[in-house]
Amino acid sequence: MKITFEELDRFLQEQFPQGAAYGTLRKLGDGWAEMSLDVDDGHLRPGGTVSGPVMMGLADVTLYAALLSRIGLVPLAVTTNLNINFLRKPAAHTPIWARATMLKVGRTMGVGEVFVYSEGGEEPVAHSTMTYSIPPKKHEN
Amino acid sequence: MKITFEELDRFLQEQFPQGAAYGTLRKLGDGWAEMSLDVDDGHLRPGGTVSGPVMMGLADVTLYAALLSRIGLVPLAVTTNLNINFLRKPAAHTPIWARATMLKVGRTMGVGEVFVYSEGGEEPVAHSTMTYSIPPKKHEN
Amino acid sequence: MKITFEELDRFLQEQFPQGAAYGTLRKLGDGWAEMSLDVDDGHLRPGGTVSGPVMMGLADVTLYAALLSRIGLVPLAVTTNLNINFLRKPAAHTPIWARATMLKVGRTMGVGEVFVYSEGGEEPVAHSTMTYSIPPKKHEN
Amino acid sequence: MKITFEELDRFLQEQFPQGAAYGTLRKLGDGWAEMSLDVDDGHLRPGGTVSGPVMMGLADVTLYAALLSRIGLVPLAVTTNLNINFLRKPAAHTPIWARATMLKVGRTMGVGEVFVYSEGGEEPVAHSTMTYSIPPKKHEN
Repeated sequence: MKITFEELDRFLQEQFPQGAAYGTLRKLGDGWAEMSLDVDDGHLRPGGTVSGPVMMGLADVTLYAALLSRIGLVPLAVTTNLNINFLRKPAAHTPIWARATMLKVGRTMGVGEVFVYSEGGEEPVAHSTMTYSIPPKKHEN
Repeated sequence: MKITFEELDRFLQEQFPQGAAYGTLRKLGDGWAEMSLDVDDGHLRPGGTVSGPVMMGLADVTLYAALLSRIGLVPLAVTTNLNINFLRKPAAHTPIWARATMLKVGRTMGVGEVFVYSEGGEEPVAHSTMTYSIPPKKHEN
Repeated sequence: MKITFEELDRFLQEQFPQGAAYGTLRKLGDGWAEMSLDVDDGHLRPGGTVSGPVMMGLADVTLYAALLSRIGLVPLAVTTNLNINFLRKPAAHTPIWARATMLKVGRTMGVGEVFVYSEGGEEPVAHSTMTYSIPPKKHEN
Repeated sequence: MKITFEELDRFLQEQFPQGAAYGTLRKLGDGWAEMSLDVDDGHLRPGGTVSGPVMMGLADVTLYAALLSRIGLVPLAVTTNLNINFLRKPAAHTPIWARATMLKVGRTMGVGEVFVYSEGGEEPVAHSTMTYSIPPKKHEN
């Protein structure tokens, strides 16, 4: 791994000054990451379940964490494509968590997939694939 | 159209009690809608531009509005698939807006596409396609 | 499982009278399937590698097989959404194979993912997610 | 435009030696293209309609043509992501055609959308978005 858990945790908190609005890092490995999100009233849609954009936000940042485990702390890696299937209604008033795994990390882009779960549930509530664009290194020569 | 601008505007405000966090209805037609979003600090990512999840949230609710113009005020229509391509960096500290158009509205699902723009910009910053699942009508017999 | 390997194999050959143009069933389980495809000159693009549409075709039919393991021999199940990421160049002049797994099988639709490999390779050459629409059963009452 | 209709037409025929298996160029503009495909028995699925992979193949090559109108005759541009929604059943035993439009052409990638129609039909049978990776120019300095 190019970075430690502590380095990435600190980096994410600096990058997202809104605090834990997008999730909290729980585990980190070589090419994968897990993050969780406490659900508050601002995340809900009618019926008390987590809204789609909240799940997309967690999936997005979790794959970002998985990517950085491979390429190091690159702030300007950006999502270029995201596809998500919403599979089941999340449990009401329950935190969600995500596990992201890289499928490929190339020189200019990384592709990965993310499963999102309600805490305590066995079946995924959403599944997402994403492409991140990796900026060229400066002074690369 | 199955609903008026005023009916949908009131419905969206009731459905999303967080207020205008997901956008404000601007125009509504038969099978299409336009919504805008004032950008505040909670929406930003490093560099002062709008984050991906914020654009996804606006795209999602704008297509929901376009769908409801065809099927009426159905609260339980839910997104089942969303695909988004991020095309250009949004302008910093500038509101964004979206135009959604239905490509098909069937009995059980609706598919549409959304273009997202920075206010004043000519080229789209993102393009999304989505599928909404339409719940069966009660007492349908 | 709702069907046996032999029942599905015979059904696929009847459904696709072009023969093995879309692939050959290799393994079948509860909610998953594996199929392979011998590559001939009609499948190639410049450089001798398998073309994108050929990989999409194999992914599509393999997920169809995985779905039928759960719902039985339903001829009119159709793909409504397909997303595919091409990850690596397939090996030249080498057969490809795919493994499909259902993520959800509901009453009206099924969602699954597919990994595509070059025979003998360890890393996937493509990854796809798909939604199939399941027709309502006749005389369902 | 970087190329003429005749140059692209000849290039496509050389690139795809299977002949018109993937479609015939009909119109070409700056950042857009139209191609059509005569449907034969090998393209059909049960019911006499065009199969999904055939529509994906036509969408893919038509967007390739649209991209080349902007970047010139680059043989090694490859699809990295394709998303397609199948909207309506194509007419039986009827040719299909596609119109592709680029949404963005950058230095390293191009994104576009494609509508697919049955000949004579007014509503699209499929809608696709795609990302093409553009190889770096040789000797670019």
